[in-house]
Amino acid sequence: MAIEVPRGFLIVLSGPSGCGKGTVLAKLLAEREDTVLSVSVTTRSPRPGDQDGVQYYFRTHEQFEQMIADDALLEYACYNGNYYGTPKAAVEEHLAAGRNVILEIEVQGAEKVMAKWQEPYVSLFLAAPSLLELESRLRGRDTEKEEDIRNRLAAAREELQHVSSYQYLVVNDEIDLAAARIHTIIEAEKLRITRNKNTLEALEVC
Amino acid sequence: MAIEVPRGFLIVLSGPSGCGKGTVLAKLLAEREDTVLSVSVTTRSPRPGDQDGVQYYFRTHEQFEQMIADDALLEYACYNGNYYGTPKAAVEEHLAAGRNVILEIEVQGAEKVMAKWQEPYVSLFLAAPSLLELESRLRGRDTEKEEDIRNRLAAAREELQHVSSYQYLVVNDEIDLAAARIHTIIEAEKLRITRNKNTLEALEVC
Repeated sequence: MAIEVPRGFLIVLSGPSGCGKGTVLAKLLAEREDTVLSVSVTTRSPRPGDQDGVQYYFRTHEQFEQMIADDALLEYACYNGNYYGTPKAAVEEHLAAGRNVILEIEVQGAEKVMAKWQEPYVSLFLAAPSLLELESRLRGRDTEKEEDIRNRLAAAREELQHVSSYQYLVVNDEIDLAAARIHTIIEAEKLRITRNKNTLEALEVC
Repeated sequence: MAIEVPRGFLIVLSGPSGCGKGTVLAKLLAEREDTVLSVSVTTRSPRPGDQDGVQYYFRTHEQFEQMIADDALLEYACYNGNYYGTPKAAVEEHLAAGRNVILEIEVQGAEKVMAKWQEPYVSLFLAAPSLLELESRLRGRDTEKEEDIRNRLAAAREELQHVSSYQYLVVNDEIDLAAARIHTIIEAEKLRITRNKNTLEALEVC
Protein backbone atom coordinates (compact mmCIF):
# COMPACT_ATOMS: atom_id res chain seq x y z
CA MET A 1 0.00 0.00 0.00
CA ALA A 2 1.42 3.38 -0.99
CA ILE A 3 1.82 5.80 1.88
CA GLU A 4 -0.54 8.67 1.31
CA VAL A 5 0.72 12.09 2.36
CA PRO A 6 -2.02 13.86 4.37
CA ARG A 7 -3.20 16.82 2.34
CA GLY A 8 -2.13 20.26 3.54
CA PHE A 9 -4.63 22.95 4.40
CA LEU A 10 -5.22 26.55 3.39
CA ILE A 11 -4.44 29.28 5.91
CA VAL A 12 -6.02 32.63 5.14
CA LEU A 13 -4.14 35.37 6.96
CA SER A 14 -5.02 39.05 7.03
CA GLY A 15 -3.95 41.99 9.09
CA PRO A 16 -3.60 45.73 8.66
CA SER A 17 -0.57 47.29 7.08
CA GLY A 18 1.95 47.95 9.86
CA CYS A 19 0.84 45.10 12.15
CA GLY A 20 4.04 43.19 11.39
CA LYS A 21 2.73 40.47 9.08
CA GLY A 22 5.94 40.26 7.06
CA THR A 23 8.23 39.81 10.06
CA VAL A 24 5.98 37.33 11.87
CA LEU A 25 5.50 35.27 8.70
CA ALA A 26 9.23 35.25 7.91
CA LYS A 27 9.92 33.89 11.39
CA LEU A 28 7.13 31.33 11.21
CA LEU A 29 8.09 30.04 7.76
CA ALA A 30 11.78 29.77 8.68
CA GLU A 31 10.70 27.46 11.50
CA ARG A 32 8.32 25.14 9.63
CA GLU A 33 8.89 22.91 6.63
CA ASP A 34 5.24 21.95 6.33
CA THR A 35 3.95 25.43 5.52
CA VAL A 36 4.60 27.81 2.61
CA LEU A 37 3.47 31.25 1.55
CA SER A 38 1.40 31.46 -1.63
CA VAL A 39 3.15 33.51 -4.32
CA SER A 40 0.76 35.91 -6.05
CA VAL A 41 0.57 36.70 -9.75
CA THR A 42 0.81 40.35 -10.75
CA THR A 43 0.93 42.54 -13.81
CA ARG A 44 3.14 45.12 -12.13
CA SER A 45 6.71 45.37 -13.44
CA PRO A 46 9.46 43.54 -11.57
CA ARG A 47 11.65 45.81 -9.44
CA PRO A 48 15.42 45.39 -9.35
CA GLY A 49 16.12 42.11 -7.55
CA ASP A 50 12.60 40.71 -8.07
CA GLN A 51 12.59 37.12 -9.33
CA ASP A 52 9.70 35.53 -11.18
CA GLY A 53 8.07 32.99 -8.85
CA VAL A 54 9.72 34.36 -5.71
CA GLN A 55 8.21 37.76 -4.84
CA TYR A 56 5.52 37.34 -7.52
CA TYR A 57 4.80 35.56 -10.73
CA PHE A 58 5.15 38.42 -13.22
CA ARG A 59 2.69 38.27 -16.09
CA THR A 60 1.39 40.62 -18.80
CA HIS A 61 -2.12 42.09 -18.69
CA GLU A 62 -3.11 39.73 -21.50
CA GLN A 63 -1.76 36.71 -19.66
CA PHE A 64 -3.51 37.77 -16.46
CA GLU A 65 -6.84 38.27 -18.22
CA GLN A 66 -6.44 34.85 -19.79
CA MET A 67 -6.01 33.41 -16.26
CA ILE A 68 -9.24 35.14 -15.23
CA ALA A 69 -11.00 33.71 -18.29
CA ASP A 70 -9.61 30.23 -17.49
CA ASP A 71 -10.80 30.44 -13.87
CA ALA A 72 -7.18 29.88 -12.87
CA LEU A 73 -7.27 32.36 -9.97
CA LEU A 74 -8.64 31.81 -6.50
CA GLU A 75 -9.23 35.56 -6.22
CA TYR A 76 -7.86 38.70 -7.78
CA ALA A 77 -8.07 42.44 -7.41
CA CYS A 78 -6.83 45.56 -9.13
CA TYR A 79 -4.72 48.19 -7.30
CA ASN A 80 -3.23 51.28 -8.92
CA GLY A 81 -3.92 49.88 -12.36
CA ASN A 82 -2.22 46.54 -11.75
CA TYR A 83 -3.77 43.13 -11.22
CA TYR A 84 -2.83 40.95 -8.25
CA GLY A 85 -4.17 37.45 -7.83
CA THR A 86 -3.73 34.02 -6.26
CA PRO A 87 -2.98 31.24 -8.75
CA LYS A 88 -5.03 28.12 -8.06
CA ALA A 89 -2.58 25.64 -9.59
CA ALA A 90 0.35 26.52 -7.30
CA VAL A 91 -1.87 26.37 -4.20
CA GLU A 92 -3.27 22.99 -5.26
CA GLU A 93 0.21 21.60 -5.93
CA HIS A 94 1.42 22.49 -2.41
CA LEU A 95 -1.71 21.12 -0.72
CA ALA A 96 -1.49 17.85 -2.65
CA ALA A 97 2.15 17.52 -1.57
CA GLY A 98 1.07 17.87 2.07
CA ARG A 99 2.16 21.47 2.57
CA ASN A 100 -0.12 24.03 4.21
CA VAL A 101 -0.41 27.20 2.16
CA ILE A 102 -0.66 30.65 3.72
CA LEU A 103 -2.54 33.23 1.68
CA GLU A 104 -1.51 36.63 2.94
CA ILE A 105 -4.40 38.62 1.67
CA GLU A 106 -6.46 41.70 2.47
CA VAL A 107 -9.88 41.40 4.06
CA GLN A 108 -12.05 41.58 0.93
CA GLY A 109 -10.01 39.00 -0.96
CA ALA A 110 -9.97 36.83 2.16
CA GLU A 111 -13.75 36.90 2.46
CA LYS A 112 -14.08 35.90 -1.21
CA VAL A 113 -11.70 32.97 -0.75
CA MET A 114 -13.39 31.81 2.45
CA ALA A 115 -16.83 31.90 0.84
CA LYS A 116 -15.61 29.84 -2.08
CA TRP A 117 -13.10 27.36 -0.62
CA GLN A 118 -14.61 23.87 -0.55
CA GLU A 119 -12.34 22.25 2.08
CA PRO A 120 -11.90 23.01 5.78
CA TYR A 121 -9.50 25.96 6.00
CA VAL A 122 -7.90 27.98 8.76
CA SER A 123 -8.33 31.75 8.91
CA LEU A 124 -6.59 34.18 11.17
CA PHE A 125 -6.39 37.87 11.69
CA LEU A 126 -3.11 39.33 12.85
CA ALA A 127 -3.47 42.62 14.71
CA ALA A 128 -1.31 45.18 16.43
CA PRO A 129 -2.12 45.44 20.18
CA SER A 130 -4.10 48.63 19.48
CA LEU A 131 -4.69 51.23 16.79
CA LEU A 132 -2.55 53.56 18.89
CA GLU A 133 0.32 51.07 18.71
CA LEU A 134 -0.29 50.56 14.99
CA GLU A 135 -0.02 54.31 14.44
CA SER A 136 3.22 54.43 16.36
CA ARG A 137 4.64 51.55 14.29
CA LEU A 138 3.62 53.22 11.03
CA ARG A 139 5.25 56.48 12.17
CA GLY A 140 8.33 54.54 13.22
CA ARG A 141 8.89 53.41 9.65
CA ASP A 142 9.83 57.00 8.75
CA THR A 143 9.16 56.26 5.09
CA GLU A 144 5.44 56.97 5.27
CA LYS A 145 3.84 60.29 4.45
CA GLU A 146 1.28 61.73 6.88
CA GLU A 147 -1.51 61.14 4.40
CA ASP A 148 -0.48 57.52 3.90
CA ILE A 149 -0.41 56.97 7.64
CA ARG A 150 -3.90 58.37 7.97
CA ASN A 151 -5.15 56.22 5.08
CA ARG A 152 -3.59 53.09 6.55
CA LEU A 153 -5.14 53.78 9.97
CA ALA A 154 -8.55 54.32 8.41
CA ALA A 155 -8.11 51.05 6.49
CA ALA A 156 -7.08 49.25 9.69
CA ARG A 157 -10.15 50.59 11.50
CA GLU A 158 -12.32 49.36 8.63
CA GLU A 159 -10.60 45.95 8.59
CA LEU A 160 -11.20 45.48 12.31
CA GLN A 161 -14.92 45.55 11.54
CA HIS A 162 -14.44 42.29 9.63
CA VAL A 163 -12.48 40.40 12.28
CA SER A 164 -15.45 38.19 13.06
CA SER A 165 -15.19 36.63 9.59
CA TYR A 166 -12.00 34.94 10.81
CA GLN A 167 -11.58 31.93 13.10
CA TYR A 168 -8.55 33.04 15.10
CA LEU A 169 -7.19 36.33 16.41
CA VAL A 170 -3.45 36.68 16.89
CA VAL A 171 -2.24 39.84 18.56
CA ASN A 172 1.28 40.79 17.53
CA ASP A 173 2.51 42.25 20.81
CA GLU A 174 5.88 40.52 20.34
CA ILE A 175 7.09 38.88 17.14
CA ASP A 176 8.20 35.67 18.87
CA LEU A 177 4.92 35.33 20.73
CA ALA A 178 2.82 36.02 17.66
CA ALA A 179 4.77 33.45 15.62
CA ALA A 180 4.44 30.93 18.48
CA ARG A 181 0.66 31.47 18.53
CA ILE A 182 0.42 30.74 14.82
CA HIS A 183 2.54 27.59 15.32
CA THR A 184 0.06 26.52 18.02
CA ILE A 185 -2.91 27.10 15.73
CA ILE A 186 -1.30 25.09 12.91
CA GLU A 187 -0.34 22.23 15.27
CA ALA A 188 -3.86 22.08 16.71
CA GLU A 189 -5.44 22.20 13.26
CA LYS A 190 -3.28 19.25 12.20
CA LEU A 191 -5.05 17.23 14.92
CA ARG A 192 -8.50 17.77 13.41
CA ILE A 193 -10.37 14.56 12.75
CA THR A 194 -11.02 15.65 9.17
CA ARG A 195 -7.26 15.75 8.55
CA ASN A 196 -6.49 12.36 10.08
CA LYS A 197 -8.16 9.78 7.92
CA ASN A 198 -4.92 7.82 7.64
CA THR A 199 -4.47 7.86 11.40
CA LEU A 200 -8.05 6.70 11.86
CA GLU A 201 -7.46 3.72 9.60
CA ALA A 202 -4.36 2.79 11.59
CA LEU A 203 -6.35 2.93 14.85
CA GLU A 204 -8.66 0.20 13.65
CA VAL A 205 -5.79 -2.24 13.11
CA CYS A 206 -6.45 -5.30 15.23
CA MET B 1 -14.59 49.53 34.09
CA ALA B 2 -14.65 46.12 35.73
CA ILE B 3 -12.29 43.63 34.17
CA GLU B 4 -14.36 40.87 32.68
CA VAL B 5 -12.89 37.38 32.90
CA PRO B 6 -13.19 35.69 29.52
CA ARG B 7 -15.63 32.82 29.85
CA GLY B 8 -14.15 29.31 29.83
CA PHE B 9 -15.20 26.71 27.32
CA LEU B 10 -16.50 23.16 27.45
CA ILE B 11 -14.16 20.35 26.37
CA VAL B 12 -15.90 17.08 25.60
CA LEU B 13 -13.41 14.23 25.82
CA SER B 14 -14.05 10.59 25.02
CA GLY B 15 -11.91 7.56 24.45
CA PRO B 16 -12.17 3.82 24.95
CA SER B 17 -11.47 2.17 28.25
CA GLY B 18 -7.75 1.37 28.37
CA CYS B 19 -6.62 4.22 26.09
CA GLY B 20 -5.03 6.01 29.05
CA LYS B 21 -7.56 8.85 29.61
CA GLY B 22 -7.03 8.95 33.36
CA THR B 23 -3.24 9.25 33.19
CA VAL B 24 -3.21 11.80 30.35
CA LEU B 25 -5.87 13.93 32.07
CA ALA B 26 -4.06 13.82 35.41
CA LYS B 27 -0.90 15.09 33.73
CA LEU B 28 -2.76 17.76 31.76
CA LEU B 29 -4.71 19.10 34.74
CA ALA B 30 -1.62 19.19 36.96
CA GLU B 31 -0.08 21.50 34.37
CA ARG B 32 -2.93 23.94 33.82
CA GLU B 33 -4.78 26.20 36.20
CA ASP B 34 -7.32 27.30 33.63
CA THR B 35 -8.91 23.87 33.11
CA VAL B 36 -10.80 21.53 35.43
CA LEU B 37 -12.49 18.15 35.19
CA SER B 38 -16.24 18.08 35.65
CA VAL B 39 -17.27 16.00 38.67
CA SER B 40 -20.22 13.72 37.89
CA VAL B 41 -23.20 12.98 40.12
CA THR B 42 -23.93 9.35 40.86
CA THR B 43 -26.28 7.19 42.89
CA ARG B 44 -23.66 4.48 43.41
CA SER B 45 -22.38 4.11 46.99
CA PRO B 46 -19.11 5.81 47.91
CA ARG B 47 -16.15 3.41 48.14
CA PRO B 48 -13.63 3.68 50.97
CA GLY B 49 -11.68 6.90 50.43
CA ASP B 50 -14.29 8.46 48.10
CA GLN B 51 -15.12 12.06 49.00
CA ASP B 52 -18.34 13.79 48.02
CA GLY B 53 -17.54 16.38 45.34
CA VAL B 54 -14.13 14.90 44.53
CA GLN B 55 -14.54 11.56 42.73
CA TYR B 56 -18.30 12.12 42.43
CA TYR B 57 -21.17 13.97 43.98
CA PHE B 58 -22.95 11.13 45.81
CA ARG B 59 -26.74 11.42 45.79
CA THR B 60 -29.71 9.17 46.47
CA HIS B 61 -31.94 7.83 43.71
CA GLU B 62 -34.64 10.27 44.81
CA GLN B 63 -32.27 13.23 44.72
CA PHE B 64 -30.98 12.18 41.30
CA GLU B 65 -34.48 11.83 39.90
CA GLN B 66 -35.30 15.26 41.26
CA MET B 67 -32.28 16.62 39.37
CA ILE B 68 -33.63 15.00 36.20
CA ALA B 69 -37.03 16.56 36.84
CA ASP B 70 -35.43 19.96 37.47
CA ASP B 71 -33.44 19.74 34.21
CA ALA B 72 -30.32 20.15 36.35
CA LEU B 73 -28.26 17.64 34.36
CA LEU B 74 -26.45 18.19 31.10
CA GLU B 75 -26.75 14.45 30.38
CA TYR B 76 -27.19 11.29 32.39
CA ALA B 77 -27.18 7.56 31.91
CA CYS B 78 -27.80 4.41 33.89
CA TYR B 79 -25.13 1.69 34.27
CA ASN B 80 -25.53 -1.45 36.37
CA GLY B 81 -28.54 0.03 38.08
CA ASN B 82 -26.87 3.30 39.07
CA TYR B 83 -27.34 6.75 37.61
CA TYR B 84 -24.39 8.85 36.46
CA GLY B 85 -24.82 12.42 35.24
CA THR B 86 -23.20 15.79 34.64
CA PRO B 87 -24.52 18.59 36.87
CA LYS B 88 -25.20 21.76 34.92
CA ALA B 89 -24.68 24.18 37.82
CA ALA B 90 -21.08 23.14 38.57
CA VAL B 91 -20.13 23.33 34.89
CA GLU B 92 -21.71 26.77 34.57
CA GLU B 93 -19.93 28.05 37.69
CA HIS B 94 -16.50 27.05 36.33
CA LEU B 95 -17.17 28.51 32.88
CA ALA B 96 -18.37 31.81 34.35
CA ALA B 97 -15.19 31.97 36.45
CA GLY B 98 -13.11 31.60 33.27
CA ARG B 99 -12.18 27.96 33.70
CA ASN B 100 -12.48 25.45 30.86
CA VAL B 101 -14.36 22.34 31.91
CA ILE B 102 -13.45 18.88 30.64
CA LEU B 103 -16.33 16.41 30.47
CA GLU B 104 -14.83 12.93 30.38
CA ILE B 105 -17.73 11.10 28.96
CA GLU B 106 -18.56 8.06 26.82
CA VAL B 107 -19.54 8.47 23.19
CA GLN B 108 -23.33 8.43 23.54
CA GLY B 109 -23.36 10.98 26.36
CA ALA B 110 -20.88 13.08 24.41
CA GLU B 111 -23.08 13.13 21.34
CA LYS B 112 -26.07 14.20 23.46
CA VAL B 113 -24.08 17.06 25.04
CA MET B 114 -22.67 18.22 21.71
CA ALA B 115 -26.11 18.26 20.12
CA LYS B 116 -27.50 20.35 22.97
CA TRP B 117 -24.68 22.71 23.99
CA GLN B 118 -25.43 26.25 22.85
CA GLU B 119 -21.91 27.74 22.93
CA PRO B 120 -18.83 26.88 20.88
CA TYR B 121 -17.23 23.85 22.51
CA VAL B 122 -14.16 21.73 21.92
CA SER B 123 -14.47 17.98 21.43
CA LEU B 124 -11.71 15.46 21.26
CA PHE B 125 -11.33 11.75 21.00
CA LEU B 126 -8.39 10.13 22.73
CA ALA B 127 -7.32 6.85 21.20
CA ALA B 128 -4.71 4.17 21.68
CA PRO B 129 -2.38 3.87 18.65
CA SER B 130 -4.32 0.77 17.51
CA LEU B 131 -6.85 -1.76 18.75
CA LEU B 132 -3.95 -4.22 18.96
CA GLU B 133 -2.13 -1.86 21.31
CA LEU B 134 -5.34 -1.26 23.28
CA GLU B 135 -5.74 -4.99 23.75
CA SER B 136 -2.17 -5.29 24.97
CA ARG B 137 -2.75 -2.44 27.47
CA LEU B 138 -5.95 -4.03 28.75
CA ARG B 139 -4.15 -7.37 29.18
CA GLY B 140 -1.26 -5.57 30.89
CA ARG B 141 -3.63 -4.45 33.64
CA ASP B 142 -3.83 -8.06 34.83
CA THR B 143 -7.02 -7.25 36.74
CA GLU B 144 -9.31 -7.78 33.77
CA LYS B 145 -11.07 -11.02 33.01
CA GLU B 146 -10.91 -12.39 29.45
CA GLU B 147 -14.59 -11.66 28.94
CA ASP B 148 -14.19 -8.06 30.13
CA ILE B 149 -11.28 -7.56 27.79
CA ARG B 150 -13.34 -8.84 24.87
CA ASN B 151 -16.26 -6.59 25.84
CA ARG B 152 -14.02 -3.55 26.14
CA LEU B 153 -12.43 -4.21 22.75
CA ALA B 154 -15.85 -4.60 21.16
CA ALA B 155 -16.91 -1.32 22.79
CA ALA B 156 -13.73 0.41 21.54
CA ARG B 157 -14.38 -0.84 18.00
CA GLU B 158 -17.92 0.51 18.23
CA GLU B 159 -16.72 3.87 19.64
CA LEU B 160 -14.24 4.29 16.81
CA GLN B 161 -17.23 4.38 14.45
CA HIS B 162 -18.25 7.66 16.12
CA VAL B 163 -14.89 9.42 15.93
CA SER B 164 -16.12 11.73 13.19
CA SER B 165 -18.55 13.35 15.67
CA TYR B 166 -15.49 14.90 17.35
CA GLN B 167 -13.35 17.84 16.24
CA TYR B 168 -9.92 16.60 17.25
CA LEU B 169 -8.17 13.24 17.36
CA VAL B 170 -5.42 12.73 19.92
CA VAL B 171 -3.48 9.50 19.71
CA ASN B 172 -2.04 8.42 23.04
CA ASP B 173 1.20 6.88 21.83
CA GLU B 174 3.07 8.47 24.75
CA ILE B 175 1.47 10.13 27.76
CA ASP B 176 3.63 13.27 27.55
CA LEU B 177 2.96 13.68 23.84
CA ALA B 178 -0.77 13.14 24.23
CA ALA B 179 -0.98 15.67 27.07
CA ALA B 180 1.09 18.15 25.02
CA ARG B 181 -1.33 17.76 22.09
CA ILE B 182 -4.29 18.56 24.32
CA HIS B 183 -2.41 21.60 25.66
CA THR B 184 -1.90 22.72 22.06
CA ILE B 185 -5.58 22.31 21.26
CA ILE B 186 -6.62 24.30 24.34
CA GLU B 187 -4.11 27.07 23.59
CA ALA B 188 -5.26 27.34 19.99
CA GLU B 189 -8.92 27.35 21.00
CA LYS B 190 -8.21 30.24 23.38
CA LEU B 191 -7.21 32.26 20.31
CA ARG B 192 -10.61 31.86 18.65
CA ILE B 193 -12.18 35.17 17.69
CA THR B 194 -15.37 34.16 19.49
CA ARG B 195 -13.43 33.93 22.77
CA ASN B 196 -11.65 37.26 22.43
CA LYS B 197 -14.26 39.94 22.59
CA ASN B 198 -12.29 41.78 25.28
CA THR B 199 -9.14 41.65 23.18
CA LEU B 200 -11.06 42.94 20.20
CA GLU B 201 -12.30 45.95 22.13
CA ALA B 202 -8.73 46.72 23.23
CA LEU B 203 -7.54 46.60 19.62
CA GLU B 204 -9.82 49.43 18.66
CA VAL B 205 -8.27 51.76 21.22
CA CYS B 206 -6.96 54.80 19.39
